Amino acid sequence: MIPPLSDLPFTLDALRDAYAAGVAPAEVMIEALARLAAVDDPAIFIHLASSEQLSAQAAALGPYDPARPLWGMPFAVKDNIDVAGMPTTAACPNYAYTAAEDAFVVARLRAAGAIPIGKTNLDQFATGLVGVRSPYGVPRNALDAEIVPGGSSSGSAVVVAHGIVPFALGTDTAGSGRVPAALNGIVGLKPSLGALSASGVVPACRTLDTISIFALTVADAFDVLRTATAFDPADAYSRPMPAAAMPVPAPAPRITAPDAASLIFFGDDAQAADFEATLTTLAEGGARIDRVDFSPFYDVARMLYDGAWIAERYAAIEDLMMTEPDSIHPVTRAIIAKAETQSAVDAFKGLYRLADLRRACAPILHATDMLCVPTIPTFATRAELDEDPITPNSNLGTYTNFVNLLDLCALAVPTGRRRDGRPGSVTFIAPAGADGVIAAQGQRLTQARCPMLGATGMITPDLPDPAPWPVSASEMALAVCGAHMSGLPLNHELTSRGARFLRATRTAPCYALFALPGGPPARPGLCRCDDEHGTSIALEVWAIPKDAVGDFIAGIPAPLVIGTVEIEDGSQVKGFLCEASGKRHGEDISVFGGWRSFLDRDTKVLA
Amino acid sequence: MIPPLSDLPFTLDALRDAYAAGVAPAEVMIEALARLAAVDDPAIFIHLASSEQLSAQAAALGPYDPARPLWGMPFAVKDNIDVAGMPTTAACPNYAYTAAEDAFVVARLRAAGAIPIGKTNLDQFATGLVGVRSPYGVPRNALDAEIVPGGSSSGSAVVVAHGIVPFALGTDTAGSGRVPAALNGIVGLKPSLGALSASGVVPACRTLDTISIFALTVADAFDVLRTATAFDPADAYSRPMPAAAMPVPAPAPRITAPDAASLIFFGDDAQAADFEATLTTLAEGGARIDRVDFSPFYDVARMLYDGAWIAERYAAIEDLMMTEPDSIHPVTRAIIAKAETQSAVDAFKGLYRLADLRRACAPILHATDMLCVPTIPTFATRAELDEDPITPNSNLGTYTNFVNLLDLCALAVPTGRRRDGRPGSVTFIAPAGADGVIAAQGQRLTQARCPMLGATGMITPDLPDPAPWPVSASEMALAVCGAHMSGLPLNHELTSRGARFLRATRTAPCYALFALPGGPPARPGLCRCDDEHGTSIALEVWAIPKDAVGDFIAGIPAPLVIGTVEIEDGSQVKGFLCEASGKRHGEDISVFGGWRSFLDRDTKVLA
Repeated sequence: MIPPLSDLPFTLDALRDAYAAGVAPAEVMIEALARLAAVDDPAIFIHLASSEQLSAQAAALGPYDPARPLWGMPFAVKDNIDVAGMPTTAACPNYAYTAAEDAFVVARLRAAGAIPIGKTNLDQFATGLVGVRSPYGVPRNALDAEIVPGGSSSGSAVVVAHGIVPFALGTDTAGSGRVPAALNGIVGLKPSLGALSASGVVPACRTLDTISIFALTVADAFDVLRTATAFDPADAYSRPMPAAAMPVPAPAPRITAPDAASLIFFGDDAQAADFEATLTTLAEGGARIDRVDFSPFYDVARMLYDGAWIAERYAAIEDLMMTEPDSIHPVTRAIIAKAETQSAVDAFKGLYRLADLRRACAPILHATDMLCVPTIPTFATRAELDEDPITPNSNLGTYTNFVNLLDLCALAVPTGRRRDGRPGSVTFIAPAGADGVIAAQGQRLTQARCPMLGATGMITPDLPDPAPWPVSASEMALAVCGAHMSGLPLNHELTSRGARFLRATRTAPCYALFALPGGPPARPGLCRCDDEHGTSIALEVWAIPKDAVGDFIAGIPAPLVIGTVEIEDGSQVKGFLCEASGKRHGEDISVFGGWRSFLDRDTKVLA
Repeated sequence: MIPPLSDLPFTLDALRDAYAAGVAPAEVMIEALARLAAVDDPAIFIHLASSEQLSAQAAALGPYDPARPLWGMPFAVKDNIDVAGMPTTAACPNYAYTAAEDAFVVARLRAAGAIPIGKTNLDQFATGLVGVRSPYGVPRNALDAEIVPGGSSSGSAVVVAHGIVPFALGTDTAGSGRVPAALNGIVGLKPSLGALSASGVVPACRTLDTISIFALTVADAFDVLRTATAFDPADAYSRPMPAAAMPVPAPAPRITAPDAASLIFFGDDAQAADFEATLTTLAEGGARIDRVDFSPFYDVARMLYDGAWIAERYAAIEDLMMTEPDSIHPVTRAIIAKAETQSAVDAFKGLYRLADLRRACAPILHATDMLCVPTIPTFATRAELDEDPITPNSNLGTYTNFVNLLDLCALAVPTGRRRDGRPGSVTFIAPAGADGVIAAQGQRLTQARCPMLGATGMITPDLPDPAPWPVSASEMALAVCGAHMSGLPLNHELTSRGARFLRATRTAPCYALFALPGGPPARPGLCRCDDEHGTSIALEVWAIPKDAVGDFIAGIPAPLVIGTVEIEDGSQVKGFLCEASGKRHGEDISVFGGWRSFLDRDTKVLA
């Protein structure tokens, strides 16, 4: 049964069900406008389509077409991204122009059936993390009118937090796609740089900008990312990125968090408690949590506003700065004007320092599958910002400012209400291209913690772990039964090559497992028995990009080989086997049923 | 027979032969100094070790050790690279300091047994392609005193061209490792950025600099590169790069050259004729020559001195520019001072434009294995430089300035004397990491054209195509022993994936070969025997691109596997093996010694 439209949570799945049951998109548009009217906040949108325009677009969709993944989905667009026929202001009236064409990403979403309903408010020129630096007013935080809405994508976050649209586009250079998500209790997905084209986007820092996605659930945000991702030859910073489905989360991911000495909460104990509780949830879910000194990342973060990258913001609005400086918000102007004293020499010195700092961060990133940090260290109130427009803003970027400078992707997810009722949030961070890896982990976390989503009153709908999606033509399924399994010493040889976990299973009952001499790491060898003495051995099947297989195999020593393994369901898959010498020189450990059980044998005996 | 030392060509192989025959390195040092004295050009070296210092270093080497690849090899070092105990001037006396430590690369060469004999002259701060911008005089061109020696690595090129040392280090930002090679008729190897550490090098443009290598032959230059390459965590721009052997050149490489309309020779018809003749030689050698409009590369080239990268040169000598500007060569100072008017905004605009231009060049680079260009469009005389110190210098960089901006590697090779007696030269250019690919092609070209090498009077020694294990880092050696061998039914599964034949050999004598049931095609299985019953089995080793291995292996059916095969020489290589079931169900055909012999058995019986 589809609930009455007024009770329907606006997630993609709920709306798809409604459309499949015969609801018309025009009705959804009317409901979205009604919800917006009920919120009664004129500062959310800078420009809103009329109900007639929305009805016309809805009608133009024709009959329901489930093949268009976003058919009939209303969405909001931050007002630094072009929507054809609407003004683009970047929250500066004197900068405004009417866009002749959709931005590349808006065009892709529209082609998938989505309908842009309007342009949302922002910190002017996407400079700020607070949402108060706009001549178009300050959107009210969806949960607590005392605190700022967060920025720079303020309107996009608030409109999603109220359940008015299932998703909205923001942009993220310093943290504009994550901070407002944390402040409003929703999901903020900051894709890998270059995954979403910047064609038709007002630049902030062209080398560090990306469109971002707000949604109530990780699944919805990732769905939109997949739909919007495409290489755009017209954007020099676009990169070919896979638009793959969300992978199955690995059973034992390595997650690295700041250690106690380097965590920063500005005295907000509730935030500290929420973060530690979240790490406990992750550990209970199988993650191995490492704690490290986070100073190298803070050193990078400081460069974003103290360093030469301010000059990119200046370059984006140079004409306005020179001809009409008074038309720019005074705080924004003061920040960007710092570039006037920066020389090209300063710019290159900044690049050199960043290169050095990248080197300092690399060992931490290489030793983990992802970072996990609080999205924000604490909250900022509107009153605090009235008093000091800079410091609370800077503080909000503590855990976000380094991400794009280091070419990482990030996902902010709600963790539930803190003990004081404010929304908790953590961010997963991983190298460019690992968007799916952190999305899978983020979805698993929200399933475990069932956070309240924004101001909608709904908790995360019950979503199963993603089903293993088919191995694509560019991948090869590979069965591993030893040190390459999740959480074991050589697993990184798979994950560092972009392999994804598919499933844990067992061989057909015709194999034997031998503990091989040598190591570390200790390794087993799997041999097929053609006689009746075989048994079923535990293994994991991973999907590895075909073009990484050669490099992977080149490092596999004798007597291990890659052959064909028969699974208990009768299917066959490429996987690790062992020359007969493994049988002759190794210890038969088949009785343990698998390598992990063998490794755990002492623990179990002692327990 | 080793010729008298005074007649010995100073190539690495000739010197190795001499050392193996009992020549002492102290004698070679004395001969090097004698040759230098005979040339009688005090402008080549800024600092030269004394004969006592060289004798001491030679004595410290101990007995001949062929395991040290550069044992006893004298070499020269451009004076912007640190050698412990010697002054580093960068051709600016007021900048000079005495280096406490060897540069990273010098230390690696010294560890391999090489002996630095001195520091060579250069265009001050490596700014220039002419070699005349130095207060230490102008080294005479080794071939023609009328023309400039080329720069900025002037002394290093001239000292190699005279056969005084077998190799010398230069640096290359705009073309300083290639232009003087062309002007003196020798080899100039400009490695991929990051392959050679910049630790201990005076920067010109830190993001675009690399140490380069001058030698008489491609083989020698590549040998030095392999020895010097190592990842240096202390240099933020160092990158992990393979230090692999030179591969066998592909039988039919795709080589792209500028089309007639976009070739630039400034009226030098002899240079045009030499270039076309060289392309003809390449085509006769099997290459497929494409001609393209080269404008996108020229657009990039212009950015190096017209754009913001001048600010990198300024950053490198900022203190001197501010405190002692008069101590800087007036031409150099005038060029670098342009950075004083450049803002950080200009710098980022330059980066944006470069990103756009990279996009424009990408399709050409993707469609080819390498570019081939004239190294220089024409020559420049000292008289011309006296008249106009800028324009002839700029012209020399026509075919070099874009290379580092596009992250490419390059190799300048002599093509022989032009019809007017001046040295011809072309440069092969390919994406970063393909140093071996262009080296193999360069060596093949010099074998075909037998150029006179520098001023030594020698022609390129007769070198065979590169030998054993010529596998590049992007390839994997794969032993095949059945239907994938050359001429057999599945060989196309290798050739269609870009694999190439390396050699025919045999396994170690510890294998058995079984004719497997099934087919067609009929296939054998190779099994290792740990007992005394093994034999040696014929196989072929192919090099398959690593990124094609996954696709290849996905089609290999059980019981065949890919494992590690031991070759008769004791080395190991990935290759086809067979699960033990092959032994149980197959027919032992080891007695035939190989699959081809087994297939031919009937023929032989009939014959």
